Amino acid sequence: MIRVLVWNEYIHEKDPNNASSTVYPHGIHNAIAGFLGKEEDIEVTTATLDDENCGITDEVLKNTDVIIWWGHCGHDRVPDVVAQKVHEAVLNGMGAVFLHSAHKSKPFMRLMGTSCSLIWRESGDTERVWVSKPSHPIAAGIDTCFELEADETYGEPFGIPNPDDIVFMGWYSGGEVFRSGVTFTRDNGRIFYFQPGHETFPTFYDPNVQRVILNAVRWAKPDVRTENVMDCPNPPSRNK
Amino acid sequence: MIRVLVWNEYIHEKDPNNASSTVYPHGIHNAIAGFLGKEEDIEVTTATLDDENCGITDEVLKNTDVIIWWGHCGHDRVPDVVAQKVHEAVLNGMGAVFLHSAHKSKPFMRLMGTSCSLIWRESGDTERVWVSKPSHPIAAGIDTCFELEADETYGEPFGIPNPDDIVFMGWYSGGEVFRSGVTFTRDNGRIFYFQPGHETFPTFYDPNVQRVILNAVRWAKPDVRTENVMDCPNPPSRNK
Amino acid sequence: MIRVLVWNEYIHEKDPNNASSTVYPHGIHNAIAGFLGKEEDIEVTTATLDDENCGITDEVLKNTDVIIWWGHCGHDRVPDVVAQKVHEAVLNGMGAVFLHSAHKSKPFMRLMGTSCSLIWRESGDTERVWVSKPSHPIAAGIDTCFELEADETYGEPFGIPNPDDIVFMGWYSGGEVFRSGVTFTRDNGRIFYFQPGHETFPTFYDPNVQRVILNAVRWAKPDVRTENVMDCPNPPSRNK
Amino acid sequence: MIRVLVWNEYIHEKDPNNASSTVYPHGIHNAIAGFLGKEEDIEVTTATLDDENCGITDEVLKNTDVIIWWGHCGHDRVPDVVAQKVHEAVLNGMGAVFLHSAHKSKPFMRLMGTSCSLIWRESGDTERVWVSKPSHPIAAGIDTCFELEADETYGEPFGIPNPDDIVFMGWYSGGEVFRSGVTFTRDNGRIFYFQPGHETFPTFYDPNVQRVILNAVRWAKPDVRTENVMDCPNPPSRNK
Repeated sequence: MIRVLVWNEYIHEKDPNNASSTVYPHGIHNAIAGFLGKEEDIEVTTATLDDENCGITDEVLKNTDVIIWWGHCGHDRVPDVVAQKVHEAVLNGMGAVFLHSAHKSKPFMRLMGTSCSLIWRESGDTERVWVSKPSHPIAAGIDTCFELEADETYGEPFGIPNPDDIVFMGWYSGGEVFRSGVTFTRDNGRIFYFQPGHETFPTFYDPNVQRVILNAVRWAKPDVRTENVMDCPNPPSRNK
Repeated sequence: MIRVLVWNEYIHEKDPNNASSTVYPHGIHNAIAGFLGKEEDIEVTTATLDDENCGITDEVLKNTDVIIWWGHCGHDRVPDVVAQKVHEAVLNGMGAVFLHSAHKSKPFMRLMGTSCSLIWRESGDTERVWVSKPSHPIAAGIDTCFELEADETYGEPFGIPNPDDIVFMGWYSGGEVFRSGVTFTRDNGRIFYFQPGHETFPTFYDPNVQRVILNAVRWAKPDVRTENVMDCPNPPSRNK
Repeated sequence: MIRVLVWNEYIHEKDPNNASSTVYPHGIHNAIAGFLGKEEDIEVTTATLDDENCGITDEVLKNTDVIIWWGHCGHDRVPDVVAQKVHEAVLNGMGAVFLHSAHKSKPFMRLMGTSCSLIWRESGDTERVWVSKPSHPIAAGIDTCFELEADETYGEPFGIPNPDDIVFMGWYSGGEVFRSGVTFTRDNGRIFYFQPGHETFPTFYDPNVQRVILNAVRWAKPDVRTENVMDCPNPPSRNK
Repeated sequence: MIRVLVWNEYIHEKDPNNASSTVYPHGIHNAIAGFLGKEEDIEVTTATLDDENCGITDEVLKNTDVIIWWGHCGHDRVPDVVAQKVHEAVLNGMGAVFLHSAHKSKPFMRLMGTSCSLIWRESGDTERVWVSKPSHPIAAGIDTCFELEADETYGEPFGIPNPDDIVFMGWYSGGEVFRSGVTFTRDNGRIFYFQPGHETFPTFYDPNVQRVILNAVRWAKPDVRTENVMDCPNPPSRNK
């Protein structure tokens, strides 16, 4: 059983003047938890900024195999201590899937160590997501490419360290390209960033997007989970 | 002209009970500045924990092409705001060379995003530093391998992201191995970590070590230096 | 069920004057097939230079999930057409595990595209194999490090492309270091190279070595297996 | 002085029925040699399939710092022995720049070890080439992106090993994306692949394309040039 925690800042969707309130009336987190929860090997919980400590404690993280993170205008409202807990849990082995505007979230930026900057435009461009690494488990079941009729445009340069693998690359009708699905390993933790998913578009109802997120969860599940990755052991010499 | 800032916490060497006070009577920073300053293409300054704001201001960083960092027991005495300034300067293009125990310094850890952990032992092991990438500019002028009669032992696993290149690998008489010289690119900045250099050994007087540090400074010099790498531009569509 | 083909040139072991004839009386391939064949999820066959076409046909490769390759003095006796078949099968998804002196085998060299050179010495050095990436599936069940009392020494620089991951690093009592366990992905195929295994030492009876090879087989098993990876499709435009 | 050899199969341009005969009346090689030859630090020669041994001998390669390669329908007419000479020269340090359809040339395929496959379409799409790594020396002087009104379309997946750096990414009006400018290191040699340059379009007269090729030549110039990279030395132990 893979224990997944879907974290969402949950701000836009509560604002009746924001289109996302209609698209995701119960929040993006519940849309994601909805399709993941149908899988027999997955157990889902959710947490948001509204929860005490963002719903993230040492106990919660210890019982989470993979965290999914969506954030946008509320990045700064996540306390540093919470970001640090998530960061260290990933280094100890917890898998992490960062979606869309989570590229500037505190946990992702701490894990990358870079600007995580990009160019962007809200012009309802069509996005075509191409599979650039067909043999990667995260691309399983995805055809050569798939289309999202409209989503926010992200463009290169994307200020990330060179990823382990580029699973997806995005094409936008407005003229940009983007490394849309990229993987990283940091200490014991596996990390996947996936570009689609602006709050005002029904991206998380798209079957291909759902399949990618499901694949990513299964891929990011830890093989090794430690508690002390930050320590530096001081062993004696092994030679006589 | 490459403008180099050698930063050293400068704690051990001021303690008359610490062997380093004899080995580096004017501090590790001045030992390094000493040999770098002889080069015609290099202009060196130094700074330490004793300076106001660690001697690091926006103005200082703006006028630094490459920073060299040595720290050990004083990592926590570097304020977060100083670590952040150094971090962002590197992302904007400033080169950075981290030496020995700087693997757990705040700027290096922020750049890596990992534990930066390793195993260690102060047993005066002999280290043999092997060149594993002979064509890398940082290995220029270095033979197949060179020896340091005694230094602190560092051993794998080293909790860093997979580096761009492994220029040197270390062998220790006590039985450990280590990725002793590794390069990274983070946004516009080039980073080199080099393992040798415990404060109680005359490592920084070794001609091979000096040559490596000199090579690294020339390699890390920025091609591009920006001021706004953290920004996300919002351009219009380029298509009609 | 993972279908494994253990390929061995099988030359040294048939020479009664060679120590390997005593260590591996039935050949290295049968020693490896012996321990792999005990696993419930693995089905093993073997092939050698003595078989027609080296025992490698399109049909055989089609029914092989992972190939294991040991070769040394007989590299040149493998026909180019056989090497090419193995090469393309890997690109189409077949996993491949190359052992010890297979670093200069034709299939490995074709997959790497580099010199695959290294320094070596037959002096019976003790080797200590360190885990440098503890969370990698190939390191599962392996402690911090393990020792081989005597094996051939290999040393850096190792002329390979930068690997995806360095799972193991080797320390030798004679003074060398080596990237002893490295992974690569080439098109759809996963590749693992593992350094230990000189023919005159009982390396393949070592429980740690056996565990590593078993882990590697399970890791290298294809997710995707194609037949046409060499083709370049010519699709129409997806835009109106 | 950087000694550059521009190699071109030179087939299409000699066919009066092929549009390229008008676009490149003296061949693509002379168009490239033309703009490179104006640089004070570069000395250019050319060679084609029409020359004896393709104009490539040990002597020629020894005196070449960087080779530029354009080929398409004549890949198979390059003898294996010539491809091998080029391959080994690169491993010994010679820089190499492969242009457009050279992705399926023998020297490039030998260096990569992969399928080098891609999807393609000759539909005169507009290509927009984005800089994805602005600090890379090959991107020097290139703006955020540049456009080629029409060129052949190449699309992902591109069957190459993960490159060291992705300097450029291509967007096509027909809907594809491509890693258009990628770097590799193989032993001592630096390699750059650049996607634009179909024979029927005036791509090699474009100032941005010319600047990229010039930058690539300067970047690929060897730091180290050996003659024996294929050898495996057998040194004595360095320990007593």
